[in-house]
Amino acid sequence: MAKKSDFLNKKQLVKHIDITKFKDMDKLVAAMGDTSFQARNLSRAADIFDMALREKDGMVFLCLAGSLVSAGLKKVITDLVDNNMVDAIVSTGAIVVDQDFFEGLGFSHYKGTPFVNDAELRELAIDRIYDHYIDEDELRVCDEVMTRIFDNLAPRPYASREVIREMGAYLVKHGKKHDGFVEACYRKNVPIFVPAFSDCSAGFGIVLHQHNRIRQGKPMCSLDSGRDFLDLTYLKMHGGKESGIVMIGGGVPKNFVQDTVVSAEVLGMHDCPMHKYAVQLTVADERDGALSGSTLKEASSWGKVDLAFEQMVFGEATVTFPLLAGAVYARGAHKSRKPREMSLYFEGADFVGKANKSSKRQRGQARGKKKQPQSVG
Amino acid sequence: MAKKSDFLNKKQLVKHIDITKFKDMDKLVAAMGDTSFQARNLSRAADIFDMALREKDGMVFLCLAGSLVSAGLKKVITDLVDNNMVDAIVSTGAIVVDQDFFEGLGFSHYKGTPFVNDAELRELAIDRIYDHYIDEDELRVCDEVMTRIFDNLAPRPYASREVIREMGAYLVKHGKKHDGFVEACYRKNVPIFVPAFSDCSAGFGIVLHQHNRIRQGKPMCSLDSGRDFLDLTYLKMHGGKESGIVMIGGGVPKNFVQDTVVSAEVLGMHDCPMHKYAVQLTVADERDGALSGSTLKEASSWGKVDLAFEQMVFGEATVTFPLLAGAVYARGAHKSRKPREMSLYFEGADFVGKANKSSKRQRGQARGKKKQPQSVG
Amino acid sequence: MAKKSDFLNKKQLVKHIDITKFKDMDKLVAAMGDTSFQARNLSRAADIFDMALREKDGMVFLCLAGSLVSAGLKKVITDLVDNNMVDAIVSTGAIVVDQDFFEGLGFSHYKGTPFVNDAELRELAIDRIYDHYIDEDELRVCDEVMTRIFDNLAPRPYASREVIREMGAYLVKHGKKHDGFVEACYRKNVPIFVPAFSDCSAGFGIVLHQHNRIRQGKPMCSLDSGRDFLDLTYLKMHGGKESGIVMIGGGVPKNFVQDTVVSAEVLGMHDCPMHKYAVQLTVADERDGALSGSTLKEASSWGKVDLAFEQMVFGEATVTFPLLAGAVYARGAHKSRKPREMSLYFEGADFVGKANKSSKRQRGQARGKKKQPQSVG
Amino acid sequence: MAKKSDFLNKKQLVKHIDITKFKDMDKLVAAMGDTSFQARNLSRAADIFDMALREKDGMVFLCLAGSLVSAGLKKVITDLVDNNMVDAIVSTGAIVVDQDFFEGLGFSHYKGTPFVNDAELRELAIDRIYDHYIDEDELRVCDEVMTRIFDNLAPRPYASREVIREMGAYLVKHGKKHDGFVEACYRKNVPIFVPAFSDCSAGFGIVLHQHNRIRQGKPMCSLDSGRDFLDLTYLKMHGGKESGIVMIGGGVPKNFVQDTVVSAEVLGMHDCPMHKYAVQLTVADERDGALSGSTLKEASSWGKVDLAFEQMVFGEATVTFPLLAGAVYARGAHKSRKPREMSLYFEGADFVGKANKSSKRQRGQARGKKKQPQSVG
Repeated sequence: MAKKSDFLNKKQLVKHIDITKFKDMDKLVAAMGDTSFQARNLSRAADIFDMALREKDGMVFLCLAGSLVSAGLKKVITDLVDNNMVDAIVSTGAIVVDQDFFEGLGFSHYKGTPFVNDAELRELAIDRIYDHYIDEDELRVCDEVMTRIFDNLAPRPYASREVIREMGAYLVKHGKKHDGFVEACYRKNVPIFVPAFSDCSAGFGIVLHQHNRIRQGKPMCSLDSGRDFLDLTYLKMHGGKESGIVMIGGGVPKNFVQDTVVSAEVLGMHDCPMHKYAVQLTVADERDGALSGSTLKEASSWGKVDLAFEQMVFGEATVTFPLLAGAVYARGAHKSRKPREMSLYFEGADFVGKANKSSKRQRGQARGKKKQPQSVG
Repeated sequence: MAKKSDFLNKKQLVKHIDITKFKDMDKLVAAMGDTSFQARNLSRAADIFDMALREKDGMVFLCLAGSLVSAGLKKVITDLVDNNMVDAIVSTGAIVVDQDFFEGLGFSHYKGTPFVNDAELRELAIDRIYDHYIDEDELRVCDEVMTRIFDNLAPRPYASREVIREMGAYLVKHGKKHDGFVEACYRKNVPIFVPAFSDCSAGFGIVLHQHNRIRQGKPMCSLDSGRDFLDLTYLKMHGGKESGIVMIGGGVPKNFVQDTVVSAEVLGMHDCPMHKYAVQLTVADERDGALSGSTLKEASSWGKVDLAFEQMVFGEATVTFPLLAGAVYARGAHKSRKPREMSLYFEGADFVGKANKSSKRQRGQARGKKKQPQSVG
Repeated sequence: MAKKSDFLNKKQLVKHIDITKFKDMDKLVAAMGDTSFQARNLSRAADIFDMALREKDGMVFLCLAGSLVSAGLKKVITDLVDNNMVDAIVSTGAIVVDQDFFEGLGFSHYKGTPFVNDAELRELAIDRIYDHYIDEDELRVCDEVMTRIFDNLAPRPYASREVIREMGAYLVKHGKKHDGFVEACYRKNVPIFVPAFSDCSAGFGIVLHQHNRIRQGKPMCSLDSGRDFLDLTYLKMHGGKESGIVMIGGGVPKNFVQDTVVSAEVLGMHDCPMHKYAVQLTVADERDGALSGSTLKEASSWGKVDLAFEQMVFGEATVTFPLLAGAVYARGAHKSRKPREMSLYFEGADFVGKANKSSKRQRGQARGKKKQPQSVG
Repeated sequence: MAKKSDFLNKKQLVKHIDITKFKDMDKLVAAMGDTSFQARNLSRAADIFDMALREKDGMVFLCLAGSLVSAGLKKVITDLVDNNMVDAIVSTGAIVVDQDFFEGLGFSHYKGTPFVNDAELRELAIDRIYDHYIDEDELRVCDEVMTRIFDNLAPRPYASREVIREMGAYLVKHGKKHDGFVEACYRKNVPIFVPAFSDCSAGFGIVLHQHNRIRQGKPMCSLDSGRDFLDLTYLKMHGGKESGIVMIGGGVPKNFVQDTVVSAEVLGMHDCPMHKYAVQLTVADERDGALSGSTLKEASSWGKVDLAFEQMVFGEATVTFPLLAGAVYARGAHKSRKPREMSLYFEGADFVGKANKSSKRQRGQARGKKKQPQSVG
């Protein structure tokens, strides 16, 4: 019978691609701009990302969906954070907890194949993500660490960004690998939001925490996804004049960031500008009306994204994301860009003051933006 | 210049398809079972759904993602609820709040076209979902009702199912259309879970609620997605011996329900069976490793879904969901199926007792299932 | 070791779906027209196909690509032919020869599964098409019959329609199943064109025929794809005033029929109308610029397809084609439609006269339709 | 009103990407091999292509489908030809005639956008391919040159490779750009096969040629697609011991090359090896059973492609083809590879002798490769 090590081979680890060490990525992506189809789209997406970085008073949101870190794109994200190319991240839970934090605890992902007997994997407690594997026993360790983190927090509702910051602190102290983006974001004060935070290993952690507290009749932590949305909206409102979104995949993160424009309006900020720059790398498709593939043009009908600088790139992220990030990195806009450290925004007594200020504008005119754009502000 | 009524034409409303009134849908889908490709897959999916309904001590979870209600599938869902063909729903927020609840308030969706000038729509405050339109002013009314609902709740963390039950009660009292599934679920005591509940009109509602409370220095409601996961896990643990999942689209709802098997194990229930029946209708694709398109076979490596009765159907839901639901409805398994009324499970003092009971089994053996499946239970 | 009969089970034959025996297909598809996405597209496609049939002096071309007959859609096509709902067919070779003619020889397709060991199938001489199987030994019989047909023809270049007519005659005399569309088209005088005719079992037949004739130093048959295009162009020019195209899949057949408009112009018919009605059922996607997924709107820029009545339906044909054909059949436009018998057009001395006539118009004005572009060549 | 030059801007020409001038493409693609999903597949495809080039007595077939040359990939193909990295090409007609030959005549493709009014383009005689444009007047010149080429040939059936060789000779003499692959193949004696040769500008050329000859009562040229298949089979049989296929897109070219293995068997060569190396770059999808997306594993059940060294890469070719070709070029296997000059194979009296030789083996054993299936026909 097969052994676990037949599948989980230390010589077959997924290795994270390093966009900073290849020459000519910028030239390659620029040349693609004179061809067609997705190559040209990719090239234009790089131009738009670059413009967003050069915006004077700008903020760049990075949205992450899909199994990016387990697939070998961790260092791409970390490099963007370390080089001040992203000011806030909105992600699925799996990428943040089950993959990045998980690797920070010392674990790895293993190259595998989709052509395998899943019943056999199940017997061996190996989880498969298309063509690579995870040791489920190690994933359970991750769950347990999450439970411990919740157990150590004061019992109250938390925005995901608060918990993830705790995770970053945990990695600095106890982590075994220090190349992940959760830790990088902690060091660089880049906030990470996970709107569906219970839909991952953090969920297993909180579930056990709450279950135990219920049995013990004690107060507990909870995950306030409403607060996530509020805080992200505050960032959109106060983080910079213009904003750009770089979306890898679609799903909840995509929608969440886009909706902050509407949300700011709901909070009374009638002159909150749409996202000025928006690019999305996706394999999804708009033709079934699902969100992940809805085009950015469609989003513009909702008043979320401006039309001038938006670009969809239809292609799988392991190929397109390194090219995009590598080309923009090579252009060097980040060299003259300062760290925004938006995590600090949420700290200190000042924060409530800022929130109060943000609602001075009248709420009663909340839907005015579309009708009288001129008379606003 | 174009007027709003040029696009929002009362004679061009989206109308909800009624699967109960067509003859021979069962024969049609059965005949597809002797052809190939997605038609045969669809036919097998109908067989599996039907088997799940005939399971003695079984529970059926319905997962909803994609713009289903706005597209005209509201009545399909309501019919499943009213006919005891589904015992719990896990959904995206947009379907529940922006679409079903929204229509319950008296509003409608309008047939349109994707070949349209989105800048013009934006000027007119019309939102587009691929080929149909929404009046954004009406959507803002929906946001406001949500704020009011939160304002009227005692300030504490809430699972989404609690808030959505309030929404059902609201519709019974104040609603103008009574054919939606939020109201049907309220009446039939079918719980609805939305793991990313702030990612929709409910998010706009909670954001304004919290923002105001912060300014006023008062306690506030929060949306506890951890509790959602815990409660859904309890349902999986105690709701019935065997479970089936009918997934329309992928995304968070798909993952959330599947993860309850692992979550039950984390809570110490080592003999929690995998989901025995599982079908998914999707246009997504597994080849980029994203979750929505990950096959159910892959899920089985995670110990979430059993392999015997699973079926992916690759196709767009407006075509495939009415066929699936219509065929299974026609077979009549629901006629001898009693309402499970799982919403009642969460009420009463009994609930904490149940939760306590569920953790009698030792937590220390939590990962044992895969290693010693024999010695469990 | 596995035996051939383990895979090729007579009780697991693919059975061809019969669109004439289900009630309410028209009502179902009509109701889909008030929903959205692909369901609404499908409904509109049915309306357009119906309009094409009701056109007074109209011609309907059916284009076939994809593994339609092996998948169980043979009877759908045959029913369209028998009920005067199609006047000419353009197809891939596999559908015509390897699948329809093959079944006419008495053979069948077997239901199978994609989750199978292909090396094992190869050992057993079983060919797999995604989820169904073919006995390769039987396919070789088909190749041999094709060689014999070529051996019995006078040695000269042939349009595919001529050879396929011989195949129809062969089936009438020697066939064992008489429910295929090759035979139906022979009986009803509906011409079938296969532009890439050597890319199928007919190719194996001609290759052996030519190889033998080369060795023997004798004259041989050849497959004149130029003549196919010429003859199809003549049909477009003289077959009726307005034309409609119903395309299942894309590929060469789609392009071939569309190009007849341009070709007619090249032959000097400057007032040859674009195809007035056009629907396509496809899973392909336009975003890579490949032909199969290029939208009909794009085709209109080429002057091939009119914009007023065109509809793409993105979905897999085993589900969408029976719904489309069944709904249109139920509406009964065919009842008052006479057989066009276009095969007869190509017979008799008259034919050359018609060809001559068709070029009376001046060639020098060939590009006139698009507003006489200046001065070429 | 819009003018033609508004769309056809000489400063917005599609420019062909040059894979020989970027550094580190090999390192980039190699690093992708340690990540996952399509990046890893792409990396493995490069390894397989490289192995095929290093095979001692090997032949490499390049299959082309999709709008590759108009999209800016002409130089990629020409570079492969000029560097002895491909020994025969099988293509759609559009790539060879409407795009490569067309550009050789001095014309260009123009960058555009899919978000455009196609009716306006039609008025201006501009043809659109998703996001780029062609001057239809120039395309008509191409049609006319093709007619002239046919008019100048002796009236008999022609394999496409013969006509395309004439086109190469034409370009050497009369061409205005000399960087295309039709001309490169002529110079390097690399044969090009187009199985559906009338489905392109060559089709318009032959149609007018034949139409005129019919009117004049004179003998004419015809396009013998049977001969294409025979000649390609001869290449597979005699061109080298092992063969590899590099497929860009799917469609007829893919099937045609794969079928040569079966065809060789039909001609009596029972030990004709399957294609040993096979890679395909495609956006197609196997789930509808259409050919373009059928996996290479499925092809192996047909005895066409060996399983050991095959790789599908799901992604759009403008992105993936330059990466694949660039990486393999950088590895330099071509430097020690001699030109095969397979066009010469078909010339001289020797050819018939070879054909005769190839049939010495008994035909009666034709199906022997797959373990002598019992008794057919």
